[in-house]
Amino acid sequence: MSHPKRPPGGFPVVGVVGGGQLARMMHGPAVELGIQLSVLAEDELAAAALAVPSAPVGDHRDVDALREFARHCDVVTFDHEHVPQSVLETLEDEGVVLHPPRAALRFAQDKLAMRQRLTELGIACPRWVRAGSAAEVSAFGDAVGWPVVAKTPRGGYDGKGVAVIRSAEDVADWLDRVGQPGPVADGILLEEKVDFVRELAVLVARSPSGQAAAWPVVETVQADGICTDVLAPAPDLDPELAAIVTEAALRIAGELGVTGVLAVETFEVRDEDGRAAYRVNELAMRPHNSGHWSMDGAVTGQFEQHLRAVLDLPLGEPTARAPWTVMANVLGGDYEQLYPAYRHIMARDPGAKVHVYGKQVRPGRKVGHVNVSADDLDAARARARHAADYLRGVVTE
Amino acid sequence: MSHPKRPPGGFPVVGVVGGGQLARMMHGPAVELGIQLSVLAEDELAAAALAVPSAPVGDHRDVDALREFARHCDVVTFDHEHVPQSVLETLEDEGVVLHPPRAALRFAQDKLAMRQRLTELGIACPRWVRAGSAAEVSAFGDAVGWPVVAKTPRGGYDGKGVAVIRSAEDVADWLDRVGQPGPVADGILLEEKVDFVRELAVLVARSPSGQAAAWPVVETVQADGICTDVLAPAPDLDPELAAIVTEAALRIAGELGVTGVLAVETFEVRDEDGRAAYRVNELAMRPHNSGHWSMDGAVTGQFEQHLRAVLDLPLGEPTARAPWTVMANVLGGDYEQLYPAYRHIMARDPGAKVHVYGKQVRPGRKVGHVNVSADDLDAARARARHAADYLRGVVTE
Repeated sequence: MSHPKRPPGGFPVVGVVGGGQLARMMHGPAVELGIQLSVLAEDELAAAALAVPSAPVGDHRDVDALREFARHCDVVTFDHEHVPQSVLETLEDEGVVLHPPRAALRFAQDKLAMRQRLTELGIACPRWVRAGSAAEVSAFGDAVGWPVVAKTPRGGYDGKGVAVIRSAEDVADWLDRVGQPGPVADGILLEEKVDFVRELAVLVARSPSGQAAAWPVVETVQADGICTDVLAPAPDLDPELAAIVTEAALRIAGELGVTGVLAVETFEVRDEDGRAAYRVNELAMRPHNSGHWSMDGAVTGQFEQHLRAVLDLPLGEPTARAPWTVMANVLGGDYEQLYPAYRHIMARDPGAKVHVYGKQVRPGRKVGHVNVSADDLDAARARARHAADYLRGVVTE
Repeated sequence: MSHPKRPPGGFPVVGVVGGGQLARMMHGPAVELGIQLSVLAEDELAAAALAVPSAPVGDHRDVDALREFARHCDVVTFDHEHVPQSVLETLEDEGVVLHPPRAALRFAQDKLAMRQRLTELGIACPRWVRAGSAAEVSAFGDAVGWPVVAKTPRGGYDGKGVAVIRSAEDVADWLDRVGQPGPVADGILLEEKVDFVRELAVLVARSPSGQAAAWPVVETVQADGICTDVLAPAPDLDPELAAIVTEAALRIAGELGVTGVLAVETFEVRDEDGRAAYRVNELAMRPHNSGHWSMDGAVTGQFEQHLRAVLDLPLGEPTARAPWTVMANVLGGDYEQLYPAYRHIMARDPGAKVHVYGKQVRPGRKVGHVNVSADDLDAARARARHAADYLRGVVTE
């Protein structure tokens, strides 16, 4: 293993489990903050392993690898939520400082546990049930109206592990495809299919000593279950709803004991009386795609804030630095060689902030994103979208 | 040597000679741009060696070390201007792509050559002479008025290699102290002591294909020959003078064949008729302390722009992102352990952007800087200065 060097001046070492783009994007702020990063990477060419001097290769499910990795870090945080609970428990029992801690991460790893806990807290969720049999699936669908949304409690992301279900038989077919045990042996999560106006995300950061900060609420635009654009702040958002969802996200962070960045993805809905309301869709306990805009659009970006939070440093100002910032994801497309397309984009729009993850291009894979800040939302959105589309090969001029 | 990994997608490797804070601060933008950095570092704990995965240790005067280093890079640029001309010449003869090239760097390395060339170009300079004897020193002093400023043509920075001279004997004393050969054997540079209103710096970036971009002109505040604060933009600057100095800096970059960032440090003076004018003081061909404000205060910061320029990528927008940004240098002071003081500063001012270089604290050494952007200059200046003073131990609350 390549161990992290100890910087002078009493500055700490933060370990990040997982070497994806989120770990990679923590490195720029870490360097500026004077914090030393170490990444437990999937392989030597992982996105973060290309960027961070200390990037030992190891399996995040291997308690020995994690223990050895953590021995050289002051705190350990995560690029993803896939470290098993049993491994997290062993590490905490041995005194490793994890942020977020195991007890909080459980609610990001297990959607049934999350729904249970949020419901107890009185947080607005879609109607839901744990279904363990075809009869329970049928009963729920008949009660809330078909179709319904089925989710595997664990392991899903970016639309994987989620299906729209029109009948109890659909569930069995889908479970066969995603390779879950038995039809509904462990129980799956069923949710009403929410009739939403749009999707909103709220990002907050919380430190171990309880300080918290929230970025402006953003609108996330999805296609095929993958986020394509983020509009910051969410345009024409009812200020009362903004306050309510922000309050809900801060409350979730506090009640669940989250440390670091928490992303709360929600649906904006209309209540029976026509008033704007929300339903929580998903939680993520790490920097999140819906917060990438903040790297260029906020005084404190989410990666800097995450590091400050997990180190229990005072949090930075999360306010926006421009009236509008739009983030567009760059998905892998026609160009295996991204560099020439990126050169074109830079020439066309000198104000676009193009972020590249150092990842091999594969169709549909998130390989970068573009942030554009402007006084005019439509202009920002058109510029960001054009750059992302050009980099994907969707447009050629 | 630890060689740089080749990133996927056709992205290049940029080599940086020298592992100081300038190389370190290139790394964050490099990661976001998807560019791989490699640094030829002074030692394993150099500021940039703590941040960059590929940081072989080598002497910048050793042509073999540089050749081996450059073999793994697409272009080579610099953290400082100390690589000897003979070494640069050998590398260029062997096909290494240097930015800035040897011919341009000469004018940053040799102040006599710089004065000569700028004078040929009609750029406003202090009155100057190359003096090779005590008689020539006396004659110059008598002509322009005592005291005069004496500079060793090579090797000076941050006030070193510069002296205020009241007589020809002073020069001999000073040369003895700085260890130059003979009294004035090779010739030294004598300049009139300019009666200036304040100091202005203009930063521009220029790419090999000739594209150029200029940041707003800034005011630099110095104490004991070291920059303490930078005000961006320079307050109450005559717009005509701003245009003139910017034009001069762009012309210098073009005529001298500079690639990457060029800093032109100038004196603002009043002409005989009372009109604002400038005199060029120094040139630096690399990102420069007077441009650190741009990391947080401009759409494209100087480190990103330098990388774009040396790679001949289209340049980014250099416009300011806030009405005012003030940069205050953090000099080493009372705290060997900077971390607790930095924690205090973060709590006191959540909007201050504290940048730390990973360097051992020594009295007077630049160990970091603080950027504050605001709508009000006085507020920004007070906040940035307080943070820097607190980190130095000058104030304790």
